[in-house]
Formats: sequence, structure tokens, C-alpha cells
Amino acid sequence: MNNLQLAVHFFLQIAVILLACRLVGLVAKRFGQPQVVAEMVTGVLLGPSLFGLLAPEVQASLFPWDPTQTTRDTQSYLFPASQLGLALYMFIVGMEFRVDIVKRHFKSSVTVSAAGIVTPFALGGLLGWAMFEWTDLFPEKTNLFEAVLFLGASMSITAFPMLARIIHFKGLAGTRMGTVALGAGALDDAAAWCLLALVLASFDNDYSHAILNVGGGIGFVAFMILVARPLLHWLSPRLFDKGTLTETGLVVALIAMALSAWFTDLIGLHAVFGAFVCGAVLPRNVARDTVQRIQPLAVSLLLPLFFTYSGLNTRISLIDTPFLWLMCGAVLVAAIAGKGIACWLAARATGVPQREALGIGILMNARGLMELIIINIGLQRGIISPGLFATLVIMAIVTTLMASPIFDRLVGKGFTAEPLPPFDTDRDTAGAQARS
Amino acid sequence: MNNLQLAVHFFLQIAVILLACRLVGLVAKRFGQPQVVAEMVTGVLLGPSLFGLLAPEVQASLFPWDPTQTTRDTQSYLFPASQLGLALYMFIVGMEFRVDIVKRHFKSSVTVSAAGIVTPFALGGLLGWAMFEWTDLFPEKTNLFEAVLFLGASMSITAFPMLARIIHFKGLAGTRMGTVALGAGALDDAAAWCLLALVLASFDNDYSHAILNVGGGIGFVAFMILVARPLLHWLSPRLFDKGTLTETGLVVALIAMALSAWFTDLIGLHAVFGAFVCGAVLPRNVARDTVQRIQPLAVSLLLPLFFTYSGLNTRISLIDTPFLWLMCGAVLVAAIAGKGIACWLAARATGVPQREALGIGILMNARGLMELIIINIGLQRGIISPGLFATLVIMAIVTTLMASPIFDRLVGKGFTAEPLPPFDTDRDTAGAQARS
Repeated sequence: MNNLQLAVHFFLQIAVILLACRLVGLVAKRFGQPQVVAEMVTGVLLGPSLFGLLAPEVQASLFPWDPTQTTRDTQSYLFPASQLGLALYMFIVGMEFRVDIVKRHFKSSVTVSAAGIVTPFALGGLLGWAMFEWTDLFPEKTNLFEAVLFLGASMSITAFPMLARIIHFKGLAGTRMGTVALGAGALDDAAAWCLLALVLASFDNDYSHAILNVGGGIGFVAFMILVARPLLHWLSPRLFDKGTLTETGLVVALIAMALSAWFTDLIGLHAVFGAFVCGAVLPRNVARDTVQRIQPLAVSLLLPLFFTYSGLNTRISLIDTPFLWLMCGAVLVAAIAGKGIACWLAARATGVPQREALGIGILMNARGLMELIIINIGLQRGIISPGLFATLVIMAIVTTLMASPIFDRLVGKGFTAEPLPPFDTDRDTAGAQARS
Repeated sequence: MNNLQLAVHFFLQIAVILLACRLVGLVAKRFGQPQVVAEMVTGVLLGPSLFGLLAPEVQASLFPWDPTQTTRDTQSYLFPASQLGLALYMFIVGMEFRVDIVKRHFKSSVTVSAAGIVTPFALGGLLGWAMFEWTDLFPEKTNLFEAVLFLGASMSITAFPMLARIIHFKGLAGTRMGTVALGAGALDDAAAWCLLALVLASFDNDYSHAILNVGGGIGFVAFMILVARPLLHWLSPRLFDKGTLTETGLVVALIAMALSAWFTDLIGLHAVFGAFVCGAVLPRNVARDTVQRIQPLAVSLLLPLFFTYSGLNTRISLIDTPFLWLMCGAVLVAAIAGKGIACWLAARATGVPQREALGIGILMNARGLMELIIINIGLQRGIISPGLFATLVIMAIVTTLMASPIFDRLVGKGFTAEPLPPFDTDRDTAGAQARS
């Protein structure tokens, strides 16, 4: 296909993806599920797991796919747009990241977060070891260390952005349950991403590469905190006109994001790290206006493309033996026991009342979009097989689907993560006070 | 290059493009030039005309390019993103399109617009005929009819979005000069796009294709006005929550845009037509909120990618003989005499005072981004040669560069099109009143 034909396809794909996401969203809403869950599911439905199974020819003509990844196909169109959407989204997550919340209810947060990382990592690692020894769910070039670490990390992840949205939306931001969950979620996510970075570093096999990855990553974070952050703070008054971020200001933020994404990609980590860190070091007032302006298009248009791109890679049909379904069940049990149950018990242990502790466990258990990101990276790099990928997609969807109904019973009224809550402007002044 | 390597490149390209656009913008500002002019120029500078001339290897490694257009290269990354940006931008232009303005100062508007389409079309057509007979600036498969029509259409285009922005920014929206220029610009643009549609229809050579193009185009517009418009009006109350467009509302607008872009692409017109028409038929309150939410990212991030994509296709070095520079001069003279001078005289003839008439002529003469869009389509389809493309790029840039300094002298104080003016909310009530 040439560029023009692909461009024709591209707009049709966008229309189909957005429409499918909204239709599934309407159904999901009836079951009290937020839009983001609907979009995760829609991605899988549009891929070979359902659409490709029911109407293989229509699916193939709508999403032409070159398995050799050399000529131009759907992938060469959806991939860049979805990567851009993903980087922008992680940038938004970074801008909404709040270290200050961890400080409140510090003991509970740290205990819950420790339980939420140690147990799933232990169970996940154990499962990774078993799978590595007795199955072919890991490709040959993945070694035991990486298998254990990757499965451990992918079990430890929290759907932090979704968690933050639910908590803000329900007005729980100031409550103990809200702050403990947010604080623990932030700590766990940070830890899980570090683990993933370690896997990626190790996976390059080359010793010099590993040094580049780890050293480059540490150097990058240090640079962002010690140089970029003060620089951006010094620049920030120049980027405002009558209290609003100028267009130049927005572009400066986007340039910083693109450079960070590029650098972390270059050193063998992933663009999402750079985008996230960049968002986190941005001055709070710049972050507030930037989120407002990029969120609508990034979340409504580009992010669904990522879900579909992920879904196109998911072949549920690869889980085709009772043994593999058993593995799938084991992954689910390890994920729920390791994360949800462990966090609930940890919260109880630090004196959080039963109902709230259960709420925290459920919130921490949802993997959401973050899990899809981590396992897509694993699949891209060839750390996990498409079969294990499908298993983990199921785990991500089930743990996310579980969250809403159970949480609703505990907290009352149904919640939906849509429409997105306004950016937390209090944070700006809080941040300024904390700094001054 | 595989996907991952290209993704690394993609973020670096974005950073370089945005940074270069802003740096050129800083210089341009000193000469009273708006940011959009800077971005047009930056696109050309990043291409083979300057960057590729000074540092061919660095340029080629930053923007790898496969001339056969089959394997994955920069183009397969920048192209989809730039097409998406372009469609979103034309969607915004459509949403900001105002028929009601033509009605005020009707006589002057119609006279200026007639002069602004007949004269440049006659001069452009004449030049197209001369080039077709005596040069090889048109590829072999282009016939005389298409050559005349295409050059005529490309001379008749107005930088309507830029014109609208300048007029709003200077607070001239209610003045005679402002309304006449806006009205005439809107009419001329509509006429020029119709001419282009005719060229594209003819160029397919196939009689059945031409019917598909013209018939499909007319059918599309009829459908959008008679079916989509009432449907969207009926839907619109459901898309609002407490006076604000919901996320679902935004997605409905984006789906309509994507479907329209896809359809006009499919019938052999171009995605920009569909996106524009879709924007124009959207209910005004939906349009207002949609523009607000998609404009920042579309204009700050995606549109510069289109300028650079266009610049990567521009080889000023192709104009390498005195004869070709003579042709370039002829194009410029025809463009300025046919548009700027003709509109100025037409305005004078309908009793507009000298200063204002000159202002109208200058505003109508700027070709801006619209010219780049039209000639990029011509190059993509193979209607014009890369040499003629380069000539027309120069014409577009020179007529746009001329506008600001001359206009400044006439209207006073320097203007910049940045920051973008807020969406004209009056329009909403005006539109509602007009309908009721």
C-alpha cells in the first residue's frame, strides 16, 4: 500500500476505533465500568481475538498487517500515532504525580505499598520461575533472571492514573482511604517501573548496554531533577501571559517531553519513562495549564489508538490448551492474592478500618492501562511470548473489571471515570507553599 | 529501520521541529512576522533546501527518506501524524468558517472576491498554459486543462485562517475592512477548493472516476447539510453536561471528522475537504467547545509536523537555471498582480477608502498555509513537478511574508498571530439567532 491508500485507511481506522470504544463504553456504563475499561476491552475485541475471528477478511482489510514489519501497513500508521498518544498520556500522568500525598498517612502508605510490591513480586517471580522452567511462555533469548523480574514487575504495577481519577471523582482525595491508596499506588508504580528498567537493561545482554541503560537512566533522572527542573522553574515566569501559559510555553513543555522520550528510548529504556519524569519535574503552574490543553485530544483521540494497537497484538486464541488456561488462572490468582489481598491485610495491620482497607485493596488491585503499557514493552522487545502476553492482557482486564463493582458496593453510588475531573488546581498553591 | 528505531527517531524529530519552529519564530517576531510564517519557513529550512544542503549526512540521518516510498522511513512516521494534524486543522478552519459575515458589506465582499478569483485565475491559467506549452514543469500525464486549472486555482487561494486570525487579533472583526476581507476570503477559498476538486476529478483520467469525484463530492456536501447537520443538531443537547461539551460529545465530533475525511479521501478528493465541511456543519456550541479542546495540541504539535513534511518535499535547488528563476518571478508577479492588486482596485471601485482598500488587497494576497496544502496535494498526486512545487512554495512564502510589514504600516502597531485569539463565542448566539 502506498501513503495515500494508507492515509485513507487511517481515517477510517480512527473512526471505527473511536466509535467502537464509545459503543462498548455505553454497555460498560450499565455495569458501572469506566470508559477506560471499555477502551481496553475494545482494543482486544477489534484485534484477532474477536473481530479477526468472526470476520477475518474484513478485519484484515480494515487493519492490514505485515508480519515481517518491513513494508508499510496499518502498523506503520497506528504505531507512531499510538506511541505519541502513549507518551503524551504518561506525560500527563507525570504532571499529575504527587509526592506530597505520600507524606500524609505516611505509615499506612508505606506499609501498604511495601505489601503491594513485595507479595506480588514474590508470587509473580515464583510463577515466572515455574513458567521459565516448565513452559515455553518465555522466548529462548529471555533468561531466568529476566523472566522472574519481568513477571514480578508486571504483577506489582498499579493503575495509578485510573486510581487517581477514581479517587478524585468520588471526592475521596482528602480521606484516609484516598490518600493511603494514592500514596501507596505512587510508590508501587515507581518501584515497578524501576524493576522494568532493570529487566530492559539486563535484556540487552551486552554489558556495556546494561551500563548505558542503568547509568543513563540514573543520569537522566539526576539531570532532570538537578538541571532541567531549576531551568524550567527559572523559565516559567517567561512562559506566562496574564496568568495563562502562552503557546510558546506549551511548546517548551512539549519539546522537553519529546527530548526526554527520545533520550530514554535511545538509552534502551522506553519513551514512557522519559515522558513521565519530564511531567513530574515540570513546574506545577506549567503542568496545570499543559494538562488542560493536551488532555482532551491525547485522551479522546490518540490513547484509544494505543489500546487498539495493543489489542491487534493480542491473540487470546493462543491460550488454546487446558494447561495454558491453568497458567492463566495461576497468573490471575497470583495477581489478586499478591496485590489486592496483601494490600487489604497490610492496611488492616496499620489500623485502617475494614471497609476502607478493603477499598484500598481493590483500588490497588486494578492494573488498568499501566499493565498494558508494561506488557506491550515486554512483547515489543521480545521478553515475553505472544501467549504470555495474551495471558497478561486477560489478567489486566479482569483485575480492572473487578475494581468498579466491588468498590461501588463498599463506597456506594456507581462511579465512572468520565468525564475527566478538572485538574487539581489546589496542588499548584500547595506545591508553591511546599517549595517556599 | 524497524519500528523501535523509527520511534526513537520520531521523538527526536518532533523535538527538533518544534525547537526550530520556535527559534525561527523568535527571529520572525523581530520583523513583525507571525508564528505561522515562521513555521512555513522552518519547514523549508529543515528540508533539502538548506539543512540538507549544509549538512546532508546529518539531515539524512535525522530524516531518513526512502524515495521508493515502500519501506518504513521518516515519511511513514511523519506523514500520518502530519495528515492527522492537517485534517484537525482544516476541521478547526471549518468550525470557524462564517457564512454570516459575507452578508454584511455584501456588495464590496462579492466584488472583491470576484476580482480575487477571476484575475488570478486568468493570469494563473495563462501562465499554466505557457508553462505547459514551453516547459517541462508539468509531468507528462498532466493535460492542458488540468495544468491551467491547477495553476489558476493555486493562484486564487486565500490564507483564510491566517486572515481571520489577523483580523480578530487586531480587533478589526467589526470594521468594514475586516468584514469585507473575511467575506471575500471565505468566498474565494470556497471557489478555489471547488476548482481544485475539479482538477483532481479530471486528473483521474477515468471517466467513471471523475463522476465518482464530482458526484461523490456534491453528494457528500448535500448529505452533510441535509442529513448530518440536522442529525448533529438533534444530538447536540445530549452531548452537553451543564453547558460544557462532554468527552463523548468531543469524540462524536472527532468521529464525524474522521468519517468525513475518510469519505472525501476515498472518492478521490482529499481528506481536507471532508474535515472542513464537517467542521462547518457542526452545531455552533459543539464547534466552540471542540475548537477549544483540540486546537492547542493540533496547532502546537501536529501542524508543525505538516510544515516540515511539506518542507522535506521542497527542493529550492531544482530552480537552477535563469529560465526557471524567470518562471518563478512570473508566478510571483501573476500572484501579486492577480490577487493583491486586483482586490485593492476592486475594493476602491466599490467606494472603500484608499487605506482600507490597500489593507484588503494585502490581506487577500497572503497565501499562507492554504497554498501549501493545495500544492502538496498537487505534488502528491503528480499533477505538478517538484520544480513547479518549489516555485509555488516560494510564491506562498513571499506573498505571506509581504503581508505583515505592509499591513503594519497601514494599520499601525505590529501584529502577531500568537497567542491564538479565543474562539469567537459571540458567533454561537449569532448563529442560534440566525437559525431561530
